[in-house]
Amino acid sequence: IPHSRTVRCFCNKTEDRLLRPRALEKLEIIPASLSCPRMEIIATMKKTEKKRCLNPESAAIKNLLKEISRKNV
Amino acid sequence: IPHSRTVRCFCNKTEDRLLRPRALEKLEIIPASLSCPRMEIIATMKKTEKKRCLNPESAAIKNLLKEISRKNV
Repeated sequence: IPHSRTVRCFCNKTEDRLLRPRALEKLEIIPASLSCPRMEIIATMKKTEKKRCLNPESAAIKNLLKEISRKNV
Repeated sequence: IPHSRTVRCFCNKTEDRLLRPRALEKLEIIPASLSCPRMEIIATMKKTEKKRCLNPESAAIKNLLKEISRKNV
């Protein structure tokens, strides 16, 4: 029985900055789990294919999700 | 200049069924684009690692996204 768990989160730092939905290739939402204790939201950008970690608690990101659920993307 | 575009969507059919957020490994949201004219929401399940296509217009899926944006996952 391991007495400590390795934390394997994808994101180290997160951004609060707003993303334009049209610049998004993909948005990945990874709920908190045993391997990473916090929810992670990872945006892949269209042009650069770069991945950016977003802060799930930022108002801008919450609005982005709301916009997506309203299907205005 | 190509006069027709190949449509390359990941999903053929989508499900309206509710998913328990805790059963989710990952949720991928792919906005509509030139290669696929509709938004796609793909859930990867924890135990099976299977991918399931969700209907972005279903109330259950909208609620799932709302729940996530409220950070109750």
